[in-house]
Amino acid sequence: MEKQAMELLEQRRFSELRELLKEMEPFDIATLLEGVPEEELPLMFRILPKELAADTFVEMDSDMQELLIASFSDRELKTVMDQIYLDDTVDIIEEMPANVVKRILKHTEPELRMRINGILQYPEDSAGSLMTIEYVDLRKDMTVLDAFTRIRRTGVNKETIYTCYVVDQNRTLLGLVSVKTLLLSNYEDVIEDIMETNVIYATTLEDQEAVAETFKKYDLLALPVVDMEQRLVGIITFDDIMDVMQEEATEDIEKMAAIMPTDRPYMKTGVWETYKKRIPWLMFLMISATFTSTILNHFEGSLAVVPALIAFIPMLMDTGGNAGGQASVTIIRGLSLNEIEYSDMPAVVWKEIRVAFCCGATLSVVCFLKVMLVDRKDVLTALVVAVTVFAAVCVAKMVGCTLPVLAKKIGFDPAVMASPFITTIVDAVSLMIYFAVASAIFHL
Amino acid sequence: MEKQAMELLEQRRFSELRELLKEMEPFDIATLLEGVPEEELPLMFRILPKELAADTFVEMDSDMQELLIASFSDRELKTVMDQIYLDDTVDIIEEMPANVVKRILKHTEPELRMRINGILQYPEDSAGSLMTIEYVDLRKDMTVLDAFTRIRRTGVNKETIYTCYVVDQNRTLLGLVSVKTLLLSNYEDVIEDIMETNVIYATTLEDQEAVAETFKKYDLLALPVVDMEQRLVGIITFDDIMDVMQEEATEDIEKMAAIMPTDRPYMKTGVWETYKKRIPWLMFLMISATFTSTILNHFEGSLAVVPALIAFIPMLMDTGGNAGGQASVTIIRGLSLNEIEYSDMPAVVWKEIRVAFCCGATLSVVCFLKVMLVDRKDVLTALVVAVTVFAAVCVAKMVGCTLPVLAKKIGFDPAVMASPFITTIVDAVSLMIYFAVASAIFHL
Repeated sequence: MEKQAMELLEQRRFSELRELLKEMEPFDIATLLEGVPEEELPLMFRILPKELAADTFVEMDSDMQELLIASFSDRELKTVMDQIYLDDTVDIIEEMPANVVKRILKHTEPELRMRINGILQYPEDSAGSLMTIEYVDLRKDMTVLDAFTRIRRTGVNKETIYTCYVVDQNRTLLGLVSVKTLLLSNYEDVIEDIMETNVIYATTLEDQEAVAETFKKYDLLALPVVDMEQRLVGIITFDDIMDVMQEEATEDIEKMAAIMPTDRPYMKTGVWETYKKRIPWLMFLMISATFTSTILNHFEGSLAVVPALIAFIPMLMDTGGNAGGQASVTIIRGLSLNEIEYSDMPAVVWKEIRVAFCCGATLSVVCFLKVMLVDRKDVLTALVVAVTVFAAVCVAKMVGCTLPVLAKKIGFDPAVMASPFITTIVDAVSLMIYFAVASAIFHL
Repeated sequence: MEKQAMELLEQRRFSELRELLKEMEPFDIATLLEGVPEEELPLMFRILPKELAADTFVEMDSDMQELLIASFSDRELKTVMDQIYLDDTVDIIEEMPANVVKRILKHTEPELRMRINGILQYPEDSAGSLMTIEYVDLRKDMTVLDAFTRIRRTGVNKETIYTCYVVDQNRTLLGLVSVKTLLLSNYEDVIEDIMETNVIYATTLEDQEAVAETFKKYDLLALPVVDMEQRLVGIITFDDIMDVMQEEATEDIEKMAAIMPTDRPYMKTGVWETYKKRIPWLMFLMISATFTSTILNHFEGSLAVVPALIAFIPMLMDTGGNAGGQASVTIIRGLSLNEIEYSDMPAVVWKEIRVAFCCGATLSVVCFLKVMLVDRKDVLTALVVAVTVFAAVCVAKMVGCTLPVLAKKIGFDPAVMASPFITTIVDAVSLMIYFAVASAIFHL
């Protein structure tokens, strides 16, 4: 299909091209347009029917949107913007440079502009910044037939019509009624009698992570957003929540890998920006490793007496780091999905103790055999290494499972307590254990 | 509310309790029931109205479900099972021990049993195993009025009515029509004229990750599932996809932390099971660390001549591991969200080279100063360490960004190419660089 479209474009067979594009999904057209030469882009875009053009515009990445806006006449810009749902308009505006924003706002109706500015004022990642104001509102004294009439009259431009919100004259949220309920009721039923009054809602300043949690808990299609006075100001739809869920998971993953999180996809992030996200943790962790140097310096004498011990330092450190990382990452994910809470801490620790014992024992037996048979060291060296492996795994699992929970308890982000951070602590502890065990066994 | 419910239960004020529970969401009742003593559970459950009881049952975890099923009479079991959507029934059955499954299947209608068995046969994580068979189907020669009549008559028991599927007498999928379209059309319009024929669908064996991708791309509420002959066999709804998205992110995170993924939440996984998920990678990575031992043994002579070099080994290894982990985790996430593809490889490598250069340069300058001023070593030692930091960061970023992409290309899971694995490789390489640089500068 894409190849065919490119051929039609090259051969300038525009009416056929239009017919082909009309059958495609906006997401796929946006993908197709990414491959079109820059100078052909406006032409290609103008071929699309008005509504499809707007839907496609929303799916494009911000660089292409900017490029297109630059080529738009003022009227074209207005046409596209009029077709787009408000939450998408806000998303687009947030990514544009100031001069483009100014041009977009200049060509929107004063009332819409006021609303856009309203949403732009909500903090990033808040419920307010995610919401759209296109929803169906009903009054409690309407009948089901009235409701259908209202949906038919106003529904075309609403992002979702499947949940309708019942408000009073002050826009206070009284209840909701789903189109399913409307369809299964009689025309003369009154909304007040069939509406659900136990409405789950978000407030404008609620964090998007909490909002996503609510969607998942209650399997919602849309969630109403109210202000401090319980007045309905907008709704959040499930498709935006899917994006939020993905964003939040990415953020956690980045933090766990000692990267400061970013909103932008990798391929769109500049070298300098990527550098700035990575260097702080690298620097901090490098400097923290001073502990390990100090410990090694301190035991320089022991190492001179039994130089064979040096060879196992990297293996001990890696094994400790990996064991601790496993525990911490599991706990961090559990915390972020609310599967684990502070009150679970004793159960978590007790479980990790047993897992650590099993893992430590297995690894230390294998390690002992390997040092004896493969590395062909003496039995005392093998014993020192094996005992240290066991102890390091146990300490690592304990540190790994407690730090994230404690971090969350005192209001820190547990995700930064992942492998890199745990490794630094575990490295130092493992080395101290190593030399303590060696001193005891070799009588140093 | 929860406290109040517990009080009413203790005081045996059941009718008030029932009124209170009726106002609560199924998810919240399930959470409440977790705190109820085991012997009170069946009583509490029986207080709930039939439909709410079934919805609450679906929200419970499998241990509680099993407990309740054990206390159910055969008739109660049948009542609950009849109220539950088929995809939820299948989810419950998959978690139950064989004897409970047998009992559940014994009390379902033969036709339903056949359908349950049908879905159970699809591979785990396939579209078929996620789907439900409760959807609204229409014929193309129906009018909009006919469609509404059919929705009203059959819609109560359908999981979603908002997308209706048009099939012929062989159940071949012809198109779909949304309730929005139906509501905005005239009663006498014929379905064939208003239906969308460009239907996006999944096949029964498609992987759930691909299905989730499709939902996100096209902002779908539901996705039809067809068999090899294009016959409609079920639909997947967005709420199940939210679970899939979370599951897939958790799986990636676990793999990145060198854990074999599991479906069960942490608190529900036994010690032995957790052990089995963690030990293979720990063992593999411990044994892989043999390389580093070999290298250190090989350079034992150099270390004896310049013993000050030993102290920096842990820091060099950690910094390399962290730098590589940052690159690999970023690329793995990009691959899994389809933001990065194989063809992007040159761009990725070029970008990482520049980021690595900046990170490496910054770290090595700081490192040089620190070794000179804080650790008070000679300038040659500081130079060896600083040059190695620079080289290790560059190598680590290169390994970290290329391995995941190559893994995906040859059909491996890129997620296992994360920090622990990269660290093992980078450790060995960093040590070799360290000794090569030391040999050159100290003329060893």
